[in-house]
Amino acid sequence: MKVIQVRHGGGEYPVYVGQGLLGMSSVLDRHLEGRILVVTDDNVGRLYLDRLRPVLGRIDHKRRLILPAGEENKTVASWSRIIDELIALKAQRDATVLALGGGVIGDMAGFAAASYMRGIRVVQLPTTLLAQVDAAVGGKTGVNHAQGKNLIGAFHAPSAVIADLDTLQTLNDRDYRAGLAEVVKYGAIRDPGFFAWLEANAEALTARVPQPLLEAVYQSVRNKAEVVAADEHESGQRALLNFGHTFGHALETATRYQVYLHGEAVAIGMALAARLSEMLGRIAPGTSDRLINLLKRLELPTELPEDQDASRLLNLMRLDKKNRADQIRLILLDDIGKASVVPCPADDIREVL
Amino acid sequence: MKVIQVRHGGGEYPVYVGQGLLGMSSVLDRHLEGRILVVTDDNVGRLYLDRLRPVLGRIDHKRRLILPAGEENKTVASWSRIIDELIALKAQRDATVLALGGGVIGDMAGFAAASYMRGIRVVQLPTTLLAQVDAAVGGKTGVNHAQGKNLIGAFHAPSAVIADLDTLQTLNDRDYRAGLAEVVKYGAIRDPGFFAWLEANAEALTARVPQPLLEAVYQSVRNKAEVVAADEHESGQRALLNFGHTFGHALETATRYQVYLHGEAVAIGMALAARLSEMLGRIAPGTSDRLINLLKRLELPTELPEDQDASRLLNLMRLDKKNRADQIRLILLDDIGKASVVPCPADDIREVL
Repeated sequence: MKVIQVRHGGGEYPVYVGQGLLGMSSVLDRHLEGRILVVTDDNVGRLYLDRLRPVLGRIDHKRRLILPAGEENKTVASWSRIIDELIALKAQRDATVLALGGGVIGDMAGFAAASYMRGIRVVQLPTTLLAQVDAAVGGKTGVNHAQGKNLIGAFHAPSAVIADLDTLQTLNDRDYRAGLAEVVKYGAIRDPGFFAWLEANAEALTARVPQPLLEAVYQSVRNKAEVVAADEHESGQRALLNFGHTFGHALETATRYQVYLHGEAVAIGMALAARLSEMLGRIAPGTSDRLINLLKRLELPTELPEDQDASRLLNLMRLDKKNRADQIRLILLDDIGKASVVPCPADDIREVL
Repeated sequence: MKVIQVRHGGGEYPVYVGQGLLGMSSVLDRHLEGRILVVTDDNVGRLYLDRLRPVLGRIDHKRRLILPAGEENKTVASWSRIIDELIALKAQRDATVLALGGGVIGDMAGFAAASYMRGIRVVQLPTTLLAQVDAAVGGKTGVNHAQGKNLIGAFHAPSAVIADLDTLQTLNDRDYRAGLAEVVKYGAIRDPGFFAWLEANAEALTARVPQPLLEAVYQSVRNKAEVVAADEHESGQRALLNFGHTFGHALETATRYQVYLHGEAVAIGMALAARLSEMLGRIAPGTSDRLINLLKRLELPTELPEDQDASRLLNLMRLDKKNRADQIRLILLDDIGKASVVPCPADDIREVL
């Protein structure tokens, strides 16, 4: 087991990464206080709720809420059901929400904890690679609105994150590989040593060998923790975490979230951003190929589908919520392991699309 | 005009107190940025929306939302309507919500600003005495749930509070006097000089004479600002602001919010808490009469209605969300201008009831 302390404006919290953590009461016990509400979804609940039994068995006042799985259920209505469960539990300000699941459950349960009595504790128990290396760390919580993803939410730091690597073994291949895209991102934007390590261990990672997997999750969380500590509310450095995401979001929207998983769209987005960086002379020739080759070895997509209309994607990118004053701000590479926020002319973007 | 700077965890914001501030563009202009959503209710909107015209007239991208007035509309559904308006406005992270109204509008618009895109600016324009001296300052936002008041919400500091004293002249007498109860509270719990000043100016205040009114609002906000700066999230000193509120909330609940305004219930609660303080020997004989006499001169109630059942009120007090481990924690006086949090035996409370 490895532990990373994440510092933020209001204090700090530990992220535990290791095998068998869900059933390890010595870890979870430290972070349970007051009445306990476990929030999960029907997929994850079926697989992993039982593992919490050694810990939860000793707690008198607890409830559990099993929500339907899927991004389409990340709504104000589901959030409202979590609030209702907290009230049914007679939860006071010292209560704790346990969020057992992927990013959808973590975001919704986190937002419910943020807004119940103006904020109670949440412990994140992420069960997907994407949630372990990204969503569960950093305190972003929220739900979707019919008009856009994550339009409603709060910054609310968890009191602990417990990433049990065992849960990654039951992910399907596509979900697992999509999580690897965010792992590669950390190397690409700020950690050349980690990027080289990923190049050396790509096949072990796709095979989910436990020891390299522990290292990959640990290094990803460490990188994210450093960024969050420097910039909790995304005014500066944290924006770099959006490398590949402006292209990616446009592609997800253009395909109505039906074709690509988030990580897959980000992989294509990172490949495009790297090519644009090279086209603009920001990185040496061949640097974008180095990133693209790693993504390919991890069996991630790196090319736009042939039927995508460049003008349409460009218009969607203009709507990105990170833009101000109608300029398209992209994260571009300065090297492998170094990135910057760059306002980009539309023509250059159109060319790479 | 007087200005108080309120310091809090994330920075600081000014509270402007004075006459004619709503139409004074030199004040409001400083705090408008991005697209503007004005949120108000049908009562306040009819009276005061026009006063904002000199300021808002120059702004291109703006919308306004007029909600039905009344505590019964302080719901998730109203909050959701504010979010929908922000989306219709295409508000980005740099947008500003203007909350024009009493505590209900301020709390709801504040919570919408807290949760839209994980937090945008809100400028509070409180139009009731209660909102000017209490609700608009300190960053508490939220909505009610069928099971309890303010169960859902967030801490979200405003970027400015603009308290236009002119709006107090149109309040009905009951609403106005109910606000004076919170003014008295600041003197009673932490400011003996202000308490003595209130005793010297009680009749001028009930007559709403502008200069004493400015002083009363200014001193109240200054006191609240000092408490909030010391204890933003209500772990310690901020609890003293609940003087009279545990009794008051129980009385409001027992009478289903149909008989007393919040400030009236707090006035009765302060009188009871002072009598209990005297009964327990915490304050000199006659001290509670000094508080009760001031409340009476301000035409506020100080006695429980004769038909109130003491056991029922006591049970309701046990449910107060500030209690932990099933003990009744009350704010009691140590003197005029000094108070403490005291765990109280039920029998003593029953006697004073």
